Amino acid sequence: MQIEDLGSLLAPVNSKIVLLVMDGLGGLPMEPGGKTELETANTPNMDKLAAEGILGQSCPISAGITPGSGPAHLSLFGIDPVKTEVGRGVLEAFGVNVTVNKGDVAARGNFCTLDSNGIIIDRRAGRISSEEAAPICERLKSIKIPGVEIEVKHVKEYRFVVVMRGAGLSPDLEETDPQRTGAAPLKVVAQNGAAQKAADLFNKWIEEANKLMKDEPKANGLTLRGFATDPGLPTYKELYNLRAACVAVYPMYRGVAQLVGMDLIKFDGETPEDEFKAVADHWNEYDFFFVHIKKSDSYGEDGNFDGKVKIIEGVDAALPKLVGLHPDVLVITGDHSTPAKLRTHSWHPVPYLLWAPASVRPDTEKEFGERACMHGGLGIFPALDNMPLSLAHALRLNKFGA
Amino acid sequence: MQIEDLGSLLAPVNSKIVLLVMDGLGGLPMEPGGKTELETANTPNMDKLAAEGILGQSCPISAGITPGSGPAHLSLFGIDPVKTEVGRGVLEAFGVNVTVNKGDVAARGNFCTLDSNGIIIDRRAGRISSEEAAPICERLKSIKIPGVEIEVKHVKEYRFVVVMRGAGLSPDLEETDPQRTGAAPLKVVAQNGAAQKAADLFNKWIEEANKLMKDEPKANGLTLRGFATDPGLPTYKELYNLRAACVAVYPMYRGVAQLVGMDLIKFDGETPEDEFKAVADHWNEYDFFFVHIKKSDSYGEDGNFDGKVKIIEGVDAALPKLVGLHPDVLVITGDHSTPAKLRTHSWHPVPYLLWAPASVRPDTEKEFGERACMHGGLGIFPALDNMPLSLAHALRLNKFGA
Repeated sequence: MQIEDLGSLLAPVNSKIVLLVMDGLGGLPMEPGGKTELETANTPNMDKLAAEGILGQSCPISAGITPGSGPAHLSLFGIDPVKTEVGRGVLEAFGVNVTVNKGDVAARGNFCTLDSNGIIIDRRAGRISSEEAAPICERLKSIKIPGVEIEVKHVKEYRFVVVMRGAGLSPDLEETDPQRTGAAPLKVVAQNGAAQKAADLFNKWIEEANKLMKDEPKANGLTLRGFATDPGLPTYKELYNLRAACVAVYPMYRGVAQLVGMDLIKFDGETPEDEFKAVADHWNEYDFFFVHIKKSDSYGEDGNFDGKVKIIEGVDAALPKLVGLHPDVLVITGDHSTPAKLRTHSWHPVPYLLWAPASVRPDTEKEFGERACMHGGLGIFPALDNMPLSLAHALRLNKFGA
Repeated sequence: MQIEDLGSLLAPVNSKIVLLVMDGLGGLPMEPGGKTELETANTPNMDKLAAEGILGQSCPISAGITPGSGPAHLSLFGIDPVKTEVGRGVLEAFGVNVTVNKGDVAARGNFCTLDSNGIIIDRRAGRISSEEAAPICERLKSIKIPGVEIEVKHVKEYRFVVVMRGAGLSPDLEETDPQRTGAAPLKVVAQNGAAQKAADLFNKWIEEANKLMKDEPKANGLTLRGFATDPGLPTYKELYNLRAACVAVYPMYRGVAQLVGMDLIKFDGETPEDEFKAVADHWNEYDFFFVHIKKSDSYGEDGNFDGKVKIIEGVDAALPKLVGLHPDVLVITGDHSTPAKLRTHSWHPVPYLLWAPASVRPDTEKEFGERACMHGGLGIFPALDNMPLSLAHALRLNKFGA
């Protein structure tokens, strides 16, 4: 049982909500009897908020399911990611300010290294630097295909996006990455007749691109994936009557925020302090701030337990800046778990802390950690509940029924 | 929000999952302040697994609903028993290796004792022994009804199955057991016009059967129930890409396992040691083992608290044999609760222990019991989540979305 549309319950209240997402926050002990990354981290500020607030475990999709970052964020934003699939191409494109309209087809591209027979020998072109890759993207912009407009933009390192605009295009296309070295990039294959035109055009574009790149030492080939068009998601304004903003360093998270109508706040630097300062600088312009910390996930994926601990401690140290703004609701959580032990996203539920001095019912827990969250007053709940919980604690939801 | 089909997420991994079901495991204290059967039992091996793993409470159907054994097992197997009804006749037939194809109608039969007026005076024929009942079933095999093929097979004690095969049969039939003594067996009544033919044929068969049994001292009558045809369930191979096997003593549990495509492992004996040895003997042939312990439920239904405690302790004592096989995931739970205090199945959630050394997030609990499970890190969850959780902890599920 779920109220699918909160629209009729929204109250015209001025209150401020901050959603602080430490990507991949949830962890595991490295050894039997040990502590997780979050439990190991020295986090006096979060522990104080935990003692004053309420804890729980949020479940991004459903039991046992490991989410990608896109679906996991959609859940936190209150949009069912099982019903609403958003292609990676669109997420990346929005993240670098490339517009994808209904009918356009966006794809995420990876540069790769091919041998003299056209076989992939490195799927990420030796993790080529942004400095080396950006000029190659510039060259790809020169490719013209009659009948369509094509936009290419570099994202980071070996990654770029390409968006095709024109009549009669469909994103129902198979990716070209064979997912292993020792094989050639695949052709773009249409999943149905309606997508044949787009498949032909993308294959033509790849052919031209390969010619332009053939003398590059590292990035002499490419693969495309995540073909998608604008999913037409409802915005935070429409869903929740919130003026919402995103503070994030990485393009993809800015992308998913933009898809639900959040403004992107521009700021210098990339530390938690820099991000929290960006929130402070725009505090009066918005009702809702989504603040995204990437590196907790990156270190988790590297298997770097201590690195992840330090990132969490860094966020904690900067936290007084955010709390000092006196948000009505502050949620601190992750989008999913990325235990250093597993070196990848995982299905484990995510530690969740809700602090709301005027309205929260505190539980008995005194610190922020996985096991404390297991005993937290919110129990285990779908991440989809994050927005209703946040709005309620911000006193922004009216009574349902008489 | 639920991923209904895990098929697209399955990873080609070699890992092994054991699901150990102690039937009716969940219990109640006999007196205020007392302990449950599981809490009373001395279970050092399970307690060690509990300390290393994670606990929770599984809910077979939904809050307050007491399940039969068929639906409860379907939930554990990941098949929604509310959407998928499987008749008792089919479960029993599969359990004794009688095939039920689509369009066949299977029924579970009980011998009963009738007085000279045809009134039931014992609904289970004085709990007639298997030795006495089997020859009666042999005699029933001689009954011929034109136009249909009929198979009769003895199950155990007063129980047998009868399967009718032919064109135009429907299982939409009312059972003939009046559910009390002092009444005659009912006629088979069709629930709709399409089932009239089957009703007539079963009534004809019962008439012939009664003639053959009229001089039996105990089993001189019968009732039929659970009319059903093959529900066509998906198999473990189809659902989860698992080579699955069942180790169970009782026919009905072998039946429900066969319905989802598990192989039945034949073995001698019926103790937990015997069952665990059967798993060991076939360890390399399968990815998933369903091991069923019946007597915890039987003692619960008898109101025999101490007997149920001893069964649990017997399983615990034998457990090192199973753990010594080094499964990647070991789940120990029940299909439902059968508190000796209530002498019947109940709706109470079921203690659930998940042990998976490489991937589990341990909680704070140190022993396996109902109250420890109430504090367990998995919370209360639908038994339907058992398979996604097991597959995830066996690292057999890929990421959902990018």
